[in-house]
Amino acid sequence: MKRNTREELIKATAKLLQMKGYVGTGLNDIIRLSGAPKGSLYYHFPQGKEQLAMEAVNWTKKNVTDFIKRRLTLYEDPVQAIQQFIIESAERFEKDNYFFGVPITALVLETSSTSENLRKSCNEVFEAWGKEFSEVLKTNGYDNEEAFEIGMNINSMIQGAFVISMARNDATAIKSIAQKIPLIID
Amino acid sequence: MKRNTREELIKATAKLLQMKGYVGTGLNDIIRLSGAPKGSLYYHFPQGKEQLAMEAVNWTKKNVTDFIKRRLTLYEDPVQAIQQFIIESAERFEKDNYFFGVPITALVLETSSTSENLRKSCNEVFEAWGKEFSEVLKTNGYDNEEAFEIGMNINSMIQGAFVISMARNDATAIKSIAQKIPLIID
Repeated sequence: MKRNTREELIKATAKLLQMKGYVGTGLNDIIRLSGAPKGSLYYHFPQGKEQLAMEAVNWTKKNVTDFIKRRLTLYEDPVQAIQQFIIESAERFEKDNYFFGVPITALVLETSSTSENLRKSCNEVFEAWGKEFSEVLKTNGYDNEEAFEIGMNINSMIQGAFVISMARNDATAIKSIAQKIPLIID
Repeated sequence: MKRNTREELIKATAKLLQMKGYVGTGLNDIIRLSGAPKGSLYYHFPQGKEQLAMEAVNWTKKNVTDFIKRRLTLYEDPVQAIQQFIIESAERFEKDNYFFGVPITALVLETSSTSENLRKSCNEVFEAWGKEFSEVLKTNGYDNEEAFEIGMNINSMIQGAFVISMARNDATAIKSIAQKIPLIID
């Protein structure tokens, strides 16, 4: 299989942003984890770490948003669709000890007061995910504004439950959130 | 006013854990931000950064738990008490652009797979906060187990909304969570 160096560098950055933080992630760490040749980093990302972090944010945004969109179309009932998505995230965590998307949370906490570029990009990610939830809620009779607000509530619940699950090292907090979705939506 | 060097070092560490991450926080950063004399760090914390991080977690735990406990006694109705606590957190964010407690979220994301000590300490913090919410819920007729589960749900909502508010640079997500508390509790 031909490896895509650019994407490997971006994926390694996303992972390291969560594991070592933005300040703590060195370009050498990224090269090492990605397995990419040394010269390739500045070839693909001439502006260095901030550019790589932005690309990691955009990569996470695209992949996770597409993933949410696909999962939410599997059930006609919006409550069930959202619950199943959350339960699957819990099961994935039990298997891999990892959540897609947590690098965004780590990055925003660290850079919200130091990089407007990164803060705004992270905000766009959360809004994109909120919009996916709100799309299915609109089919449940909510108007645009209400649907977006509830979509963002669900987003808050999920992001917080991911963090608490990582602290507890089990998926209890996420599974519990899944059960509360009908209360928030109905 | 006499400064308490030990506490200044701990407070600086808590702040830096959020701003620069665990890996990215150097002992020199802590000395600089705290204003403490250089030799005092190893005098108070001979085991260095992990010890300081543990103390920062315990300091945050104690202070935020006491704060939650005090605020939740201000209203007899548990729903109103929890809502007011959340609204005040939103107002404090609008003033200071900061949430008490976010260093715990930042730390757990970064260290959950590398330091069992820190992960467990962070988990104890989230559980302590969840217990404060559950205490007031017990007066609302929930048994211990239900009350703790809902307390942790509220915790997830708040932690997630803090992160999204930092990304958006406004308190909309937290204020919106406050409105949803009656749905989760009743």
